[in-house]
Amino acid sequence: MSGIARELGISFGASLTGPLNAITDVPGVLVGHRTIRSGDLNTGVTAILPHGGNLYRKKVLAACDIINGFGKSAGLMQVEELGTLETPVLLANTFGVGTCANALIRAAIAENPDIGRETVTVNPVVMECNDGYLSDIQALAATEDDARAALAAAASGPVAEGNVGAGTGMSCFGFKGGIGTASRRIELGGRDHHLGVLVLTNFGRAGDLILPDGRRPDPRSKVEPDKGSVIVILATDIAMEHRQLKRVVRRCGAGLARLGAYWGHGSGDIALGFSTARIVDHDERADFLAISALNENRIDRLFRAAAEATEEAVVNSMCAAEAMQGWAGHFRPSLADWLRSQS
Amino acid sequence: MSGIARELGISFGASLTGPLNAITDVPGVLVGHRTIRSGDLNTGVTAILPHGGNLYRKKVLAACDIINGFGKSAGLMQVEELGTLETPVLLANTFGVGTCANALIRAAIAENPDIGRETVTVNPVVMECNDGYLSDIQALAATEDDARAALAAAASGPVAEGNVGAGTGMSCFGFKGGIGTASRRIELGGRDHHLGVLVLTNFGRAGDLILPDGRRPDPRSKVEPDKGSVIVILATDIAMEHRQLKRVVRRCGAGLARLGAYWGHGSGDIALGFSTARIVDHDERADFLAISALNENRIDRLFRAAAEATEEAVVNSMCAAEAMQGWAGHFRPSLADWLRSQS
Amino acid sequence: MSGIARELGISFGASLTGPLNAITDVPGVLVGHRTIRSGDLNTGVTAILPHGGNLYRKKVLAACDIINGFGKSAGLMQVEELGTLETPVLLANTFGVGTCANALIRAAIAENPDIGRETVTVNPVVMECNDGYLSDIQALAATEDDARAALAAAASGPVAEGNVGAGTGMSCFGFKGGIGTASRRIELGGRDHHLGVLVLTNFGRAGDLILPDGRRPDPRSKVEPDKGSVIVILATDIAMEHRQLKRVVRRCGAGLARLGAYWGHGSGDIALGFSTARIVDHDERADFLAISALNENRIDRLFRAAAEATEEAVVNSMCAAEAMQGWAGHFRPSLADWLRSQS
Amino acid sequence: MSGIARELGISFGASLTGPLNAITDVPGVLVGHRTIRSGDLNTGVTAILPHGGNLYRKKVLAACDIINGFGKSAGLMQVEELGTLETPVLLANTFGVGTCANALIRAAIAENPDIGRETVTVNPVVMECNDGYLSDIQALAATEDDARAALAAAASGPVAEGNVGAGTGMSCFGFKGGIGTASRRIELGGRDHHLGVLVLTNFGRAGDLILPDGRRPDPRSKVEPDKGSVIVILATDIAMEHRQLKRVVRRCGAGLARLGAYWGHGSGDIALGFSTARIVDHDERADFLAISALNENRIDRLFRAAAEATEEAVVNSMCAAEAMQGWAGHFRPSLADWLRSQS
Repeated sequence: MSGIARELGISFGASLTGPLNAITDVPGVLVGHRTIRSGDLNTGVTAILPHGGNLYRKKVLAACDIINGFGKSAGLMQVEELGTLETPVLLANTFGVGTCANALIRAAIAENPDIGRETVTVNPVVMECNDGYLSDIQALAATEDDARAALAAAASGPVAEGNVGAGTGMSCFGFKGGIGTASRRIELGGRDHHLGVLVLTNFGRAGDLILPDGRRPDPRSKVEPDKGSVIVILATDIAMEHRQLKRVVRRCGAGLARLGAYWGHGSGDIALGFSTARIVDHDERADFLAISALNENRIDRLFRAAAEATEEAVVNSMCAAEAMQGWAGHFRPSLADWLRSQS
Repeated sequence: MSGIARELGISFGASLTGPLNAITDVPGVLVGHRTIRSGDLNTGVTAILPHGGNLYRKKVLAACDIINGFGKSAGLMQVEELGTLETPVLLANTFGVGTCANALIRAAIAENPDIGRETVTVNPVVMECNDGYLSDIQALAATEDDARAALAAAASGPVAEGNVGAGTGMSCFGFKGGIGTASRRIELGGRDHHLGVLVLTNFGRAGDLILPDGRRPDPRSKVEPDKGSVIVILATDIAMEHRQLKRVVRRCGAGLARLGAYWGHGSGDIALGFSTARIVDHDERADFLAISALNENRIDRLFRAAAEATEEAVVNSMCAAEAMQGWAGHFRPSLADWLRSQS
Repeated sequence: MSGIARELGISFGASLTGPLNAITDVPGVLVGHRTIRSGDLNTGVTAILPHGGNLYRKKVLAACDIINGFGKSAGLMQVEELGTLETPVLLANTFGVGTCANALIRAAIAENPDIGRETVTVNPVVMECNDGYLSDIQALAATEDDARAALAAAASGPVAEGNVGAGTGMSCFGFKGGIGTASRRIELGGRDHHLGVLVLTNFGRAGDLILPDGRRPDPRSKVEPDKGSVIVILATDIAMEHRQLKRVVRRCGAGLARLGAYWGHGSGDIALGFSTARIVDHDERADFLAISALNENRIDRLFRAAAEATEEAVVNSMCAAEAMQGWAGHFRPSLADWLRSQS
Repeated sequence: MSGIARELGISFGASLTGPLNAITDVPGVLVGHRTIRSGDLNTGVTAILPHGGNLYRKKVLAACDIINGFGKSAGLMQVEELGTLETPVLLANTFGVGTCANALIRAAIAENPDIGRETVTVNPVVMECNDGYLSDIQALAATEDDARAALAAAASGPVAEGNVGAGTGMSCFGFKGGIGTASRRIELGGRDHHLGVLVLTNFGRAGDLILPDGRRPDPRSKVEPDKGSVIVILATDIAMEHRQLKRVVRRCGAGLARLGAYWGHGSGDIALGFSTARIVDHDERADFLAISALNENRIDRLFRAAAEATEEAVVNSMCAAEAMQGWAGHFRPSLADWLRSQS
């Protein structure tokens, strides 16, 4: 099974991963990055698309869990009320939310000229962490063009991890954080399904990290309050109801806790999940729809997968991220370097 | 269209009711009362059954809304987590909850000897209001036999309203309250469905009641703080997801507000809804289930029906309730008498 | 007692209003409007400031209630987690949220250069309704300059109502909606306090409106699904805990329901409240703070005030709004004209 | 620092415990057990009292977190609405909830004869796990006398752990579970405070347990679905608001996750916390109360303590529990025996 953390000798139990050990093991899911590294800027935008079609017309089932709500993500209220996602998800830094939301609105209008006229408006979903330690966040650097570039770059296949896209300037447990991903394979109804996770990691106090084998890597950083955040995007092709998906998404927080996090006060820890197995047609004409739900007695398999894939994705984000000297002379070491120094 | 409030000249708009204008317009739903009137006691138990079969084996979809959580209802936490109801709902006074829960547990074990042994336990649902103004609530008068009597009395057809079952000793807006019911007919998917409501009314400050025509009946009672409660049970045979049902159930609170309530501090205002269109098999073997969900663009019809039926059921409870001289010389007049005195 | 609806003969019960019957009866609260009327545009921005000082440094206690979450408001997640408001609240149309958020971020940075550097980031709060029936919402017309103009216009004293600021292009129950306000006076602790409400009204199906006297005004509009929304901002100078404020804010939904609303599927009905009696110092050094909480046994007075002031503010928004011929030939009549035609 | 897990060589980091490493390190907190071991019965009742006075008259601040709501605890809805606890907390098995609630009601009436007459009713809080693997749960064995015995046994000082009280027949990660406790010392405002946890452990799949040092003890049990539950009671003498306490209580779930739990589907994982620093007077006469709140910037210390103490209390419950041969020939080994076999 692949994965940069596994290559560096970290084990995550016996569960099977998907072929890429990535969120893109869920068929149809696309990921794109726009990385901005220039002068005082180490930032970017990452796009996750449940499918490559018209998401406003063909929404997907979605649910979220607010693990700790010290954050500025946009669009989650409507996701909870209606249980659907109708735009791509953009990840950005905290002050890029408004601009990314505008880009998503304009893209949705371009594709659906009836928005706000013959039909209702659109709910852009943007999630964020604060990369102000390594990047000049006051610059509000990401533009609508950057958001469009991340969307345009979205592709299936392997996902770039570490210092890329929205993860470019992030920090995690005193080390360099960033983008990470992992997946699990789940057999249900006689065929393989996948549950994949992509994380934007910017959380955890230096010294608190516990690896699955019990080791506690020391970044030799000053211990500061946890002012970061972590965003967890969970994707699956397993059919479920909204209530079931919400239960599954809640388990992402268990994956974070296993690494030593206690969901710090200043950390906006938010998980959003979607299932591509349930398409909600914006223009549905029938009164009733035949949908597929999961036998609740099988849901523990998904709970386990959500916790494990979140844990592994976080470690992958740190293992893939190279050390960075950022804005104002701030520095974050690489967990991969620490791991190599131990062997 | 039938209904005691309508017979007394109150109009509730143009929507169509079901044939009985009662919760039992939903096919399969059964209601039973056990009334206790003796000495200082004016109390009782009311049972609502989604169907007459083995509810533990064939659960129904359920959801609730805590309008104001100053209450002692049992079983709602699991209803929210799992989205199912697996026992009848018993209504009782506040101090009858424990005893009614025990009766439901024993009844479930008798029908399902594997409970707590080969399979999981059972979640009894009991809801309550405080009838201490007209009955000696410190007596903990209702026994497990009373609970069983209410269950045994459960039947389809017209529902007795007013001073009956759990409603025997209740008060509402300074008048006598009790049990009330109403329903609405909704055409979807080419055939008629129903949404019915049964209420246990014990809420509202004397002088706050506003009738649908704008009249404000005065019970000439001392104005006291709202220490009551109201329980709303909503039933339907319309297929939905749990999230959708939860949205529908939330609209019961709008029906209460239209009558002048503002969900007083001391009033445990709780709504619980279930749909008989979705049976969840305790012993389900398949990994995935084909279920039916509502086109969300049709849900306003259910919202309107939930608000209207709740409003009408409350007025019915008051119109059906006769004036009562209760415990400690306490007295509640009848809204029906007030209405008759106006014409 | 003043108020345009009262001048038009509508009565709202015996409770006392504040001197202005406006949200600005709460000492320190400021309201500003920026109105945009040009060609296809009938839109704008409205600013509500809890006080005129540095809100990031001196936050106020805040809480919200999601009555129906079909909406795109920004910033509410953190308000719920931390119980504080640290920027002005901007009201705008649905597609103005991102731009208004950016304006609030830049204003906060200008006033607090340590944001995102030495200290954490800032949580902009922007709330919205969809004015696409009377204005070209696809234009994303409101600019950061418009947001700044609304902030700069913020003042104490009487509040302009009707077709002004964010209310310029809104619709309500088939009539013209917009901005409305009302307040209640509450004596506690031996002195007068106020609870004020400002609403942005864009909700309700034509034909559903019920006035407090039972009349049902008919706008002679085509009956359409409820695609609107309503934003309720509640302000008070009464000291409370967050949990208590959240309970009070929930009662705004009762005020809406009394007018015939059932919180329609497509309507983002959101209430946000703040108390100026509780200032949270961003740079607090003490471990413990002496704060003031309300005796919960007094909270019904606030519940009643919240429901009543919301109801009256909505009617005021409609009574103050003149009929409008808007974008694409769409028209909304004035409730004031209807009321005058009845007398 | 004391603690049975520490004596067996398990380390829980550098944070300081209280003198007893028990929930009773919080001044005033009392714990009592009633153990029932007879024939097919291995069950009991445990009582936790925030203080030894009249809790109905002098309520304490309380909040809860529903980690996974597959459970039948009573009284939590009102705790959330009002933020207070007004009876002792009783722990029992799942089918003992009704009987324990009745016992608490009768005890409250005996102490406060105005309950349900001159004043409102009382909200009994009972929490539960399913001990049906080792005890005949269908017997509904615990009586009101047993509940009273647990209350009467409540004392300060060291807390009996393992197979005692409600923990008598519980299982955890395939080992014997039961009652466990731990505490942390926190310096704030210039003096020591404590945060203590008591757990009733009956959760976790055999093979999933991860000790803090990375070891994975194998109970050599059949791997079964997680049908258990865990109750976490958190006590502190640190002054807080309800919202703050709720945030703290949420971190108990992180402590469970660190041990390998993912909050299994069938496991009712519930945490309830109270603070003895805030007494709410039932008969309060003043309109406003001066209370003490925590500087939110200090709350990470409590988050860490809640997660750590929960983790340690769970391990203590398992280390203190002796192997048990229970009902129907079912057997659970002791973690202490496994640990000793490793050294």
